[in-house]
Amino acid sequence: MRIDILSLFPAMFAGPFGESITKRAVAKGILDIHIMNFRDFAEGRHKQVDDSPFGGGSGMVLKPEPLFRAVRFLKDTTNYTKRRVLLMSPEGAVFNQAKARELAQYEQLIFICGHYEGFDARISENLADEIISIGDFVLTGGELPAMMITDAVSRMLPGVLGSEESAPTDSFYNGLLEHPQYTRPREFEGMQVPEVLFSGDHAKIARWRREKSLEATLKHRPDLLRTAELDKKDLQYLAALQENQGEN
Amino acid sequence: MRIDILSLFPAMFAGPFGESITKRAVAKGILDIHIMNFRDFAEGRHKQVDDSPFGGGSGMVLKPEPLFRAVRFLKDTTNYTKRRVLLMSPEGAVFNQAKARELAQYEQLIFICGHYEGFDARISENLADEIISIGDFVLTGGELPAMMITDAVSRMLPGVLGSEESAPTDSFYNGLLEHPQYTRPREFEGMQVPEVLFSGDHAKIARWRREKSLEATLKHRPDLLRTAELDKKDLQYLAALQENQGEN
Repeated sequence: MRIDILSLFPAMFAGPFGESITKRAVAKGILDIHIMNFRDFAEGRHKQVDDSPFGGGSGMVLKPEPLFRAVRFLKDTTNYTKRRVLLMSPEGAVFNQAKARELAQYEQLIFICGHYEGFDARISENLADEIISIGDFVLTGGELPAMMITDAVSRMLPGVLGSEESAPTDSFYNGLLEHPQYTRPREFEGMQVPEVLFSGDHAKIARWRREKSLEATLKHRPDLLRTAELDKKDLQYLAALQENQGEN
Repeated sequence: MRIDILSLFPAMFAGPFGESITKRAVAKGILDIHIMNFRDFAEGRHKQVDDSPFGGGSGMVLKPEPLFRAVRFLKDTTNYTKRRVLLMSPEGAVFNQAKARELAQYEQLIFICGHYEGFDARISENLADEIISIGDFVLTGGELPAMMITDAVSRMLPGVLGSEESAPTDSFYNGLLEHPQYTRPREFEGMQVPEVLFSGDHAKIARWRREKSLEATLKHRPDLLRTAELDKKDLQYLAALQENQGEN
């Protein structure tokens, strides 16, 4: 997969993309990342990328020309059929695991990152295929969201994760929060590892983990229970939990 | 505010924290960021930070000792009364602007970032004051979420943003998505800027922007309308929009 990032702050990407999963995906030839400063596509001596908003108001607005030119350049100089231009902005649908899975199907993703300021609406309406928000909070730019989406999408590409990590038990794969994990030491500063994990009874351990997973989800993210795959045992356990909660 | 980050990949932070808003907040002395590799607190020649899970299963689990020691060291060597230990994990409440505002009240934030693997549950239960998730998707580590929260929180600290940027019109400040913005050129490749913005009628422009803001929110994030501050005019406009939608 080819990833193109259009940003006024290309240096931001060096750290995150130079380490960890992204680095490995690039080394394996699975991911091909290009970062471009769209200021290079601005005109004039000052390479102006923004201007004040029509109709008044504070702040600056990113001009359409440099970004239209930059995206056109990328499309003209690369040769992919399945590509998607993504604009990072709070005005989009909120990113989630289903979207990561969907984006992993493309051959090329082009990220448009704004910084400090808004986009001229002609960019969001006519240049971007899709507007993606990373969540309900205000950030200084689209760079961190683009890095995060790249990370989440990379993980879905075949060959990126080792079998150890591809863990189908990863949170959200089964629609529930993960069960608690424990490792050595068995006791640490008076805090014990639950006995059941030493029972050697695999079915019992699996059941305990499932119940803990249901408990955590009910407590912290009950909204996930609406869409999780639950069997009869799960539903009975949840019903019992809610009954107990009612009594306390 | 002091920010401490505990991570096995400290080099990831160089790019994002070396640019933009975070850099400026540090330069102004408003933010003091320290990044520490908690492997330095692991014991033995191999400085082991993880081990296999009790009860079986794939993957590795972060051991309690190095992180407990690292957080203790930070608490012993710094002197703040209002501090908060945050663990980045999908098992937490989802981060939003209200949480950013809340975290901006602390004097010290200590971020615990895992990577590839889960935490021993004694860390999440007994060491972290709070578990924060950045959204419903799977990432390789807590580093990008910690950067993002640092960005969102920094923006709330007095003196970080210039008056130009502190824009109370920023998305989510008023609970609605932002209205479209336009800048020069007035026409670009056949795409026009709406006439109203050249009317010079400030009340009319303000009303148009408000209506566009309501329209965008209704279309992309209707969930936000439940909590947004809406006056009578807004409600009438929304009712008219919904009626038109019904007719189409």
